Amino acid sequence: MKSYRKELWFNTNYRREYINITRQIEACIKESNIKEGIVLVNAMHITASVFINDDESGLHHDFEKFLERIAPEKPYNQYQHNGYEDNADAHIKRQLFGREVVCALTNGNLDFGPWEQIFYGEFDGMRNKRVLVKIIGE
Amino acid sequence: MKSYRKELWFNTNYRREYINITRQIEACIKESNIKEGIVLVNAMHITASVFINDDESGLHHDFEKFLERIAPEKPYNQYQHNGYEDNADAHIKRQLFGREVVCALTNGNLDFGPWEQIFYGEFDGMRNKRVLVKIIGE
Amino acid sequence: MKSYRKELWFNTNYRREYINITRQIEACIKESNIKEGIVLVNAMHITASVFINDDESGLHHDFEKFLERIAPEKPYNQYQHNGYEDNADAHIKRQLFGREVVCALTNGNLDFGPWEQIFYGEFDGMRNKRVLVKIIGE
Repeated sequence: MKSYRKELWFNTNYRREYINITRQIEACIKESNIKEGIVLVNAMHITASVFINDDESGLHHDFEKFLERIAPEKPYNQYQHNGYEDNADAHIKRQLFGREVVCALTNGNLDFGPWEQIFYGEFDGMRNKRVLVKIIGE
Repeated sequence: MKSYRKELWFNTNYRREYINITRQIEACIKESNIKEGIVLVNAMHITASVFINDDESGLHHDFEKFLERIAPEKPYNQYQHNGYEDNADAHIKRQLFGREVVCALTNGNLDFGPWEQIFYGEFDGMRNKRVLVKIIGE
Repeated sequence: MKSYRKELWFNTNYRREYINITRQIEACIKESNIKEGIVLVNAMHITASVFINDDESGLHHDFEKFLERIAPEKPYNQYQHNGYEDNADAHIKRQLFGREVVCALTNGNLDFGPWEQIFYGEFDGMRNKRVLVKIIGE
């Protein structure tokens, strides 16, 4: 069994942002030289998500509106976590969108359906944060 | 390390439907001849989920009611994604119920608790869509 | 490829409770003697979650309040599942917080960001329930 590990770093311009990282994951796969196995991609921070969905800006607007409706950022004092911090909403949003994706690796490629794209979902950005890529297989 | 790959196809009668696919995953495990490892089962489309819960029709009705309450299908124009499409709600529902499950494979069987069943969760059906089964192990 | 399997048992004092199980997972890793690979940690019951977030009591209070707001326990008769049972809300809460986490295992340790902690999320407790730990690698 072979394994591969890489950290990807992000520093978003806005508090919340969705970044398509599919090309970066494909580059990791190439670099790993692993052809068959699985690829784990996870946020290393607990106010961010990694998820798979559509690369369509209207949909990302709908995600933002949905998450702000059910777990709004403000008022900050609605959350007990927000004593010295202001990011309780980001912890909840990340719970809903998930920490990680596990993808099949087949013949050296991401084994994806036609529209699957991997996103880094930032809910408390404007600072350096990391995603971990771990590949195991042969 | 051995690996196995299979696509399962679905075409539901309704826009939203939950299908118990546990027997099909067990058949894949048998066919793979892998005894120890993990089983990844993921939707290949971004308006469908794979998840593990109870095979109980009352609960599935509760899931439907819950998801329609927090991310309703209609009115379609509440979502920016719905220009040429009408399935923004399905993308959001899939985010909440998740894309994939990763299951332990032990002694040639799904290593499950007493009530765990694997479901394909369709949120925009009535067309051909796929689930990927990837098994790695020995 | 080596593999390791262990069940962890829980019996909470309250219906809903979050238990930090990171130390127990680290003990499993040590016991497994596996240095490189992945660690799957999943609830074996369908009214409980395993997830990764912050070990901060204010945040756990916010999680409780959020989940009770969008999928309340009572009144029990709002759910079709609650004929002989009263735990439909627990099935829904578990859907939102997820069944499992998959973690990278690097150099014999959980490959985690600075604040990542693994939690058992109980939504229908006060009885014996299990978590499965499965490690594969080398």
